Amino acid sequence: MAAVAAAAMKPGATLTDVGSVKAGPAEAMHAAAPAGVYVIPGHPIAGTEHSGPDAGFAELFENRWTILTPKINDDEAYALAVARLSSFWRAIGANVELMDEKHHDLVLAVTSHLPHLIAYTIVGSAADLENVTESEVMKYSAGGFRDFTRIAASDPTMWRDIFVANKDAVLEMLGRFTEDLQAMSRAIRWGDADTLHDHFTRTRAIRRGIVAAGQESAEPNFGRDRGKH
Amino acid sequence: MAAVAAAAMKPGATLTDVGSVKAGPAEAMHAAAPAGVYVIPGHPIAGTEHSGPDAGFAELFENRWTILTPKINDDEAYALAVARLSSFWRAIGANVELMDEKHHDLVLAVTSHLPHLIAYTIVGSAADLENVTESEVMKYSAGGFRDFTRIAASDPTMWRDIFVANKDAVLEMLGRFTEDLQAMSRAIRWGDADTLHDHFTRTRAIRRGIVAAGQESAEPNFGRDRGKH
Repeated sequence: MAAVAAAAMKPGATLTDVGSVKAGPAEAMHAAAPAGVYVIPGHPIAGTEHSGPDAGFAELFENRWTILTPKINDDEAYALAVARLSSFWRAIGANVELMDEKHHDLVLAVTSHLPHLIAYTIVGSAADLENVTESEVMKYSAGGFRDFTRIAASDPTMWRDIFVANKDAVLEMLGRFTEDLQAMSRAIRWGDADTLHDHFTRTRAIRRGIVAAGQESAEPNFGRDRGKH
Repeated sequence: MAAVAAAAMKPGATLTDVGSVKAGPAEAMHAAAPAGVYVIPGHPIAGTEHSGPDAGFAELFENRWTILTPKINDDEAYALAVARLSSFWRAIGANVELMDEKHHDLVLAVTSHLPHLIAYTIVGSAADLENVTESEVMKYSAGGFRDFTRIAASDPTMWRDIFVANKDAVLEMLGRFTEDLQAMSRAIRWGDADTLHDHFTRTRAIRRGIVAAGQESAEPNFGRDRGKH
């Protein structure tokens, strides 16, 4: 797709994208672009579980971060194109950060790809149980499961492509998570209450940081069920 | 605590609770109650990551489910006490379901306890990374991670007690989840796009069921960031 778009572009134009994985696709974009076209891969970290034009809303990018992964070079015209694209994102409300494309893929493996993989997995596990019905899972989902189903309702084709494209970073993060989950499992099996309490206390700081960074509403239940007011 | 409360109760009174695990605590309540006191353990499936009186709001129980786990017997007075307690919960907006206490613990292990364990774990894993900073995790959390941090900000003492009290059911569910996660990991490693796509498609049905069951808002981002309107 990048190749088709790139072939039609005139020198001085900017070629960007909004994909969730950067390293591989960026390489393809750089290879496909004619001389004089500024390739600046990008990724706005915003959105819901819904896809397509109807899923947009005016405040979608407000106070969210857009990551751009430009090449590092000393071309002044390229630097200007990066500044222009940054201004575009800022104009629609986003904050902009420049980042190495491989580092982007690692960061997103933690903040997005692994959470999606886990959510997809647990929702599948719950659906497969013999001793708990799907109806029970749905009715009593307000206990925490519900939040996982929202993430697991994201577009299957897009997420298949993300996991195939960002395999190495996802598997690295998954390895860390699995190791930590085994440690928690062991603490539960042996009734190691102190280890559990210490761990559960530590994770609250991250949440407070996210609220402080303006990436979350501190409202109870973030206004869920309050649409009517 | 149940023993102290029970000792002060007169015949004809009802002793209930709102704890997240039922089998063990219910046994203690039955043992502690004087003759003629109706012991009816209960659990409202509602709430946010916040605890204490200030975390309540008027609509907290509206259209949420409260599970009661009465003993099965043919005592008419006991049946009346169960009906009375059910009416109480309905009066403040909840739906009521009667359930065997062991089955309750298994259902909640899936819909609440395992999701909390996973959320606590991944948030801890993310905080421990050497190559991704905490600041990066916070800034780019809107990609999915944010939802896990909300769950992982729940009360550490309460959750420590839940995992100790519901050990068997949690470990059973954790075993299923880990098995399924290994299968996903393998599909990613081998680039098995079809397996990934099939799995990701299947989980959407559960989400639709939860929205249909009135346990979730279908609004984009469920009104997050829209409190101002």
